[in-house]
Parts: sequence; C-alpha cells; structure tokens
Amino acid sequence: MTQRVHRSTVRVRYAETDQMSVAYHGNYFAWFEVGRTDLLRDHGFTYRDLEQQGLRLPIIEAHVRYLRPARYDDVLEVRTRIAQLGGARVSFDYEVLRSGVEEVLATATTAHAAVDPAGRPRRLPVELRDAFARLVAS
Amino acid sequence: MTQRVHRSTVRVRYAETDQMSVAYHGNYFAWFEVGRTDLLRDHGFTYRDLEQQGLRLPIIEAHVRYLRPARYDDVLEVRTRIAQLGGARVSFDYEVLRSGVEEVLATATTAHAAVDPAGRPRRLPVELRDAFARLVAS
Amino acid sequence: MTQRVHRSTVRVRYAETDQMSVAYHGNYFAWFEVGRTDLLRDHGFTYRDLEQQGLRLPIIEAHVRYLRPARYDDVLEVRTRIAQLGGARVSFDYEVLRSGVEEVLATATTAHAAVDPAGRPRRLPVELRDAFARLVAS
Amino acid sequence: MTQRVHRSTVRVRYAETDQMSVAYHGNYFAWFEVGRTDLLRDHGFTYRDLEQQGLRLPIIEAHVRYLRPARYDDVLEVRTRIAQLGGARVSFDYEVLRSGVEEVLATATTAHAAVDPAGRPRRLPVELRDAFARLVAS
Repeated sequence: MTQRVHRSTVRVRYAETDQMSVAYHGNYFAWFEVGRTDLLRDHGFTYRDLEQQGLRLPIIEAHVRYLRPARYDDVLEVRTRIAQLGGARVSFDYEVLRSGVEEVLATATTAHAAVDPAGRPRRLPVELRDAFARLVAS
Repeated sequence: MTQRVHRSTVRVRYAETDQMSVAYHGNYFAWFEVGRTDLLRDHGFTYRDLEQQGLRLPIIEAHVRYLRPARYDDVLEVRTRIAQLGGARVSFDYEVLRSGVEEVLATATTAHAAVDPAGRPRRLPVELRDAFARLVAS
Repeated sequence: MTQRVHRSTVRVRYAETDQMSVAYHGNYFAWFEVGRTDLLRDHGFTYRDLEQQGLRLPIIEAHVRYLRPARYDDVLEVRTRIAQLGGARVSFDYEVLRSGVEEVLATATTAHAAVDPAGRPRRLPVELRDAFARLVAS
Repeated sequence: MTQRVHRSTVRVRYAETDQMSVAYHGNYFAWFEVGRTDLLRDHGFTYRDLEQQGLRLPIIEAHVRYLRPARYDDVLEVRTRIAQLGGARVSFDYEVLRSGVEEVLATATTAHAAVDPAGRPRRLPVELRDAFARLVAS
C-alpha cells in the first residue's frame, strides 16, 4: 500500500531563529522543501536527478498559516502529501508539528509548475506523473 | 495627503539565489519585511521602537503568487500597503516589480497579530492604529 | 573512552545553493553550528539549556578554508572537535566531508566567548568546562 | 584619483537576527558580498556581466573577527578594499561599522579564485586585473 503522507524530521537551527526567539517565518520554506524532496525520494525520485533530466519545478504559489511558534532546537515533523496534480503542475500540502506531540505549528500549500531549463512549460515526466497520481489525495 | 503605497528598493544578492539561477522563494519574505518596516518608518514608527514598547507583530498567515523570477543583481521595487486593519491584527499587501519596469514579479499578503512579549494577544497601540487607519485601502 | 571527534550529518538543501550551483559559503556556518551543538548534546549538554541558565557563546572569530564545493542534495558529514579551551572561551575545529568519501570539502575554526545575557564576559560553567577539558585535543 | 576603499550601506533585517538579538554571524557574508560587488560596480564591472563572460570568483578562504554585535535595524557601513591580487586570485578586506560612528563591529578577509564555468582555474580578465591593480593596497 502506498504511503500518502510522508514524514520528515528537521531540528530548528539557531541560524533559523530571529530575535522574537522563534523560527523566522521565511525559513519554513526550506523545511517544506525538505518534506517535498523527501517525499519524492521515498518514491524513487530525487529532485537532483529530475533536474539533470531537464525538469524544474519552480514554485508559483504558496499559502502558509502560522499557528504556533517553532523554537530553537525543537524537533519538527513535516508531513507532506500531494494535494493536486495536473499535466504540467503539482501542489503539495504540509503540516509542521512538534515531534511527538499532535500539535500543529503550521499548515501550508505550495503549487509548482513543470518547466524546462529555459523556463518554458513542459509536461511532468510520465513515471513521475504516475507516481504522483497514486499518491494524490482522493 | 497620505501616501498609501510605500515603495522600497532592494537588490537581489547572490546569497539569495539558488541553482535555478533565480531568487529562492523563501527569501522574498525578507523583502516583504523591508517593505513593511519601511512603510512604518515612513509614518514615524520603527518596528525596533514598537518592539521595545512591548509590541510584537508575528506573522499568522502568508499568501504569495510568484509570477516571474527575480534574478541576481536585479533592482526590485517592493510596493507595500495596508490591506486590512483590526483591533489586534493588521495585514499588508505587496507587489514586487523589477525597478523601472511595470512588470510584476510577485504579489503577496501577510497577516500579523498584535501580541505582547509573552505572546499574548494585545491591542495595537492607538497612535499606530490611527496611522494605519489613515492608510488602509478604502 | 571519550569520543573526541563528533560526527553530524546534514543534507544540502536547495535553499542553501546559489546560482553557481554550489552551497553558498555563508551557509556553512549553520552546518558548523549543527556540529557544535550536536557535540554538546552528545556530552549531555544542550545549548538551549545552557542559554536558559544564563550562558551565551557568541562567535568572536571564524576561519574557513573552502576546498571543494558542496552541491545540492549532497549528504555531508561534519566532524567537530574542541580545539582550544580557556576559562571564558572555547574554540572548535570542523571538517566537512562528502559522506562516505574521505574527501574534505572545507575545514574551519570558530572561537566563542562565554558571556552572560547582558553580553558581559563570564566563566564557563564548571561542568561544561570539565566536559570540554576531557575532549580538548591533547 | 582612485578611491581605494569602497563604502556600502546595508540595514540589518529582522530575518538576519537570531534569538541572541544580534545579527547571526553567517549572515555577515551576504554583507561582504554587497561590499565586494559594489566595489566592482563602482569601477565599471558587474559580477553579473563577469559571470556571463565566463568568470566565477568562488571563495576559497575567509577570516572574520566579530568585535561587537550588529543589531536589528542598525544601518551598517561596509568598507571594502582589495587586499591582494594574483594572476588567478584576488582577496578583499572588509570593515563593518555602525553608520555614522567610528566603531568597528567586524573585520574580515575573503580570498577568491578565478575559475571558468566548469570550475577550472583561469586568469582574471585583463581589464579587471588592471582595475584591481590600481586599487590594491600599496
């Protein structure tokens, strides 16, 4: 059975905090990236290889709700799943929780377009599209 | 007459690019921050002083549309305005353009809650609220 | 027997790359920080607790040699050890290697002063100093 | 007469602070980059163009002394000059001061190798080398 939600772990770095003693909000995007690339890896794809094969997945839209602060040294769990899939785009949903506690710190969605190295729209590779299709929320 | 849209200038740093040769999407949040704090400064407030007076304005929600890439060494104009105002929250709208060109690279909204240093909700200081009220989009 | 060299693992994030398709040099400092705090944790200390007990260890000097580039998605090993120890300061040496390969990408030293929350010099807590003393390169 | 020391201005962003309420040490490298590229620009070169012409100047060594903290919203002056010049390498010296005050917050040196897009050593372009030669500390 295919695991629809992928779980990644990150620990909040001092470099990621700000003087409000919480993780700076812009830094969550690196964690979403970890979640998304780990999900890919978990299904046999690495974004590094996809890129070498001529695919780019730049972000076209992001929506984040920050519910509770993440703090220095917190171990976070990033839960990632495919939210929507099109021929030339894909979007991901994320939940960030403090590890071991069912307390959601943030939820987010990022949408990505499939483009070639020159930035022109292209279709997702068929194997990737098929893998995503098996994972998409029903 | 009060200027409703504040214009800030930032230049894209090499540190802000990624290997797609565009500015990494998470780094736009530092530019929105520049826009927002410049708008405050332009109306006689510095976020530094507000913080010393016991106000924090943590982000609670963000929505970004990435329309065209920002590239290394681009001079960007960040146009910021107050989008919505409540007793204990405020939201800002942003447009990021390549300077000198009416070409929008990104649009965004960030919503912020007013809290005290312990993170408890509080009302916006009355002078700040009045200044924001004069600026809010009608 | 005390392990003098601590080994941490980090994976290079897309957010950490620049348009030269390598990890931006300023981002190595977050990895050194991971190495240093993991070394502390490995010996029973967390920097979070030390900070809550009134200790800060701000950096006062850094020296880095960048020998080979670190690339996106590389799994890196950060080897950290105590280089020098004084009553109110400590320095760490680092080696960054591509994991599984004895190929050094960077070497570095960072020196840190012990200060109180107001930034005044103070002595290292005695238990921490003793732990460090057992680890210092002979 | 050639101006040997170039002065750039940066304002410390909230994104650049950490929970010690100072600018995180790794973020100084983006400011050194601003100083270095502004110095180039001031003498008729942009790093963007140089890169498009097949030159890369990756960092090979850095040495920083952190003397006093830089704080949120501080306006900093970055003073940059050429420290040393070789056929295929160049190094820069930096001083970071709080603007308007002769108080040095940090001093640094970064050394850079000239390489081609494939990472192979190459010589500096002759016009660039000549411009640097006129600026080098005597």
